[in-house]
Amino acid sequence: MTILITAKDYKSTNLPTLKKQYADLIEKGTIPTLHVILVGENPASVIYTRNKKKFIENLGGKCEIINLPETISEKELLENINNISSSPDIHGCFVQMPLPQHLSHLDVGQLIPPSKDVDGFHAENLYHVMTGNFDETTLLPCTPKGVIKLLKEYKVELEGKDVVIIGRSMIVGKPLSLLFTAENSTVTICHSKTKDLIEKTKAANIIVAAIGKANFLNADYLNEKGDQVIVDVGINKDSEGKLCGDVDTESMKNKCHAITPVPGGVGPMTIYCLAENLLVAANNLRNK
Amino acid sequence: MTILITAKDYKSTNLPTLKKQYADLIEKGTIPTLHVILVGENPASVIYTRNKKKFIENLGGKCEIINLPETISEKELLENINNISSSPDIHGCFVQMPLPQHLSHLDVGQLIPPSKDVDGFHAENLYHVMTGNFDETTLLPCTPKGVIKLLKEYKVELEGKDVVIIGRSMIVGKPLSLLFTAENSTVTICHSKTKDLIEKTKAANIIVAAIGKANFLNADYLNEKGDQVIVDVGINKDSEGKLCGDVDTESMKNKCHAITPVPGGVGPMTIYCLAENLLVAANNLRNK
Repeated sequence: MTILITAKDYKSTNLPTLKKQYADLIEKGTIPTLHVILVGENPASVIYTRNKKKFIENLGGKCEIINLPETISEKELLENINNISSSPDIHGCFVQMPLPQHLSHLDVGQLIPPSKDVDGFHAENLYHVMTGNFDETTLLPCTPKGVIKLLKEYKVELEGKDVVIIGRSMIVGKPLSLLFTAENSTVTICHSKTKDLIEKTKAANIIVAAIGKANFLNADYLNEKGDQVIVDVGINKDSEGKLCGDVDTESMKNKCHAITPVPGGVGPMTIYCLAENLLVAANNLRNK
Repeated sequence: MTILITAKDYKSTNLPTLKKQYADLIEKGTIPTLHVILVGENPASVIYTRNKKKFIENLGGKCEIINLPETISEKELLENINNISSSPDIHGCFVQMPLPQHLSHLDVGQLIPPSKDVDGFHAENLYHVMTGNFDETTLLPCTPKGVIKLLKEYKVELEGKDVVIIGRSMIVGKPLSLLFTAENSTVTICHSKTKDLIEKTKAANIIVAAIGKANFLNADYLNEKGDQVIVDVGINKDSEGKLCGDVDTESMKNKCHAITPVPGGVGPMTIYCLAENLLVAANNLRNK
C-alpha cells in the first residue's frame, strides 16, 4: 500500500507547538506581524494571500494585505516596499507573485531586507542554503523547507539517498537541491533539456516533480521495486479545470512506497513554513 | 587517443585578447588594480599570491600583496579589509585562503563589497550563479568559471549532457554545478555519503573530480565507450610528495575522450579568470 504523505498529518503533530511559540512571543510583547504586498487582483493571488492571512491570524499573529493598483508605477511600488520593510513593527514582508507585466522585470525578493525576507528569496538567505550552514534562526525558502520537513516527519531517510528533482526554478528546484545536499542526499537536477529522464527517475530513491505540467510524471517513470518516494510540488489545472499536481497520482498507487497528493500534500507546507519564518524573523529581530 | 585539455592551449588563443582589453582600459586612464591580503606565511599561499601578482602585472595591471602578521587580531584584519576595499583606486580585493586557526571562522568573502569581489565568493555574486542570470559583467567564481571556459574552448558539448561532480565545496562543486545547469547540462553532485559512485560516474558524459584526494578517480570509474570527458580540479601531493590531481591520469589514458592534466589543466584557468574578473570589476566601476 502506498503511503500518502500529507501536510495535514504534519500539522496535526506540529501546529500546536508553533501555536505555543506564537503565544509565548506574544506574551513577551511581540506580535509576529507580516505585511503582504498584493499588486492588482489576480484571482489566484487573492486566494493565496487570503489563506496566508488566515493561517497567521489563526496562530495569533498579524497579517496585513496591502492592495496596490495593477497600474502602479515601478517607483511607487519600490517606495511602498521600502516603507513597509523599514517599519520596526513589521517583522516579515513579501510581494505576492506574479507581478503585472510592466513590473515583472523586478527581482523584488532582493528589495526586502534579508532579516524580514520570510519568503527566503534574498541572496543572503539563499547563500546559507548554498553553504548548508544554517540553523533554526535562518529564513529558508518556504516550499523547499516544507518538503524536507514533511519527508523527515514521515521518517523518509535522506542521507545517502539518490534524489532526482525535475525542475530548476529558484522557488523550488535549485534551493531544494541544495537542502537535500545539506542532508547528505545525492541530488540530480533535471529539466527540459535532460536526456533519458525515465532512466534517471527509475534509478532514484526520491523523485521530486516541480515543473508545473499537469500529470507529467506517471508510473512509467518508476522502477519495479515499489520503494520510491514521490514528492509532487506542482499545482496545475487539468484539461477539465480540476486542480492537479505534476504527478498522475492515480497511476502511481501501489507502485511506490509513498507519495504526496495534490491537493493536501506539499502545498499547505508552504504556508506553514511562511508562518514559521515569520516567528523566526520576529524572534531574531527581538533578540538583535 | 585521449585529448589533453590544457589551460596553456586556452591561453595561447585567448590571452592576447585579454592583454588588449587591459591595454585599452589602461589607455583610458584606469589601471586594473588588485590588492591581495595575505595573513601569515603559509608557503603554498605565498607561491599562489606571487603567481597571481606576476600574471596580473604581466597584463599591465597592478597587484599589491598586503602581508599581515600571522598573529593579527580579528579586529585589525577587518579594519584592513575595510580600508582596502573602500579605496576607490582598488578595483578588486580578496583574502588569500586559508586563514590562521584563530581567524578561520570568518567568512571573509562576505566582507568584500560584491563589486570588488574578484574571487566571486560574495552571496550577491553567487546569487547570479544560482539564478543563471549572468553575463560578461558578472563576477563569477574563478575556478568554476575556468572549467566551463576550458570545456567550451575545446568544443565539449554541455547542453543535455550528464555531468557528475564529485565534491560539494563552495569554491568548486556547488557553484560549478549551477554553472553547468545554466548551460543546460544535467548535473549530479556526489560526495562522501554518495552510494554507488562508480555506477554514477560510468553513466556520465562529463566527470569533474574536486574532492582533494590524490589519484582518487581511476579507470574503474569509467565506462567502456571511451567517450567521457574528465575534469580534474584537484591539487594534491602524492605519497612521494609529487604534485598530482584527484584523477589517476595515467590509468585513464586511451580510456576517455579527453582529460585535464594536473598540473597544467584547470589550475592556471583560476588565475586567468581572476585576471578577467579584475578587468570586469575595473570596467564596471568605471562605467558606474
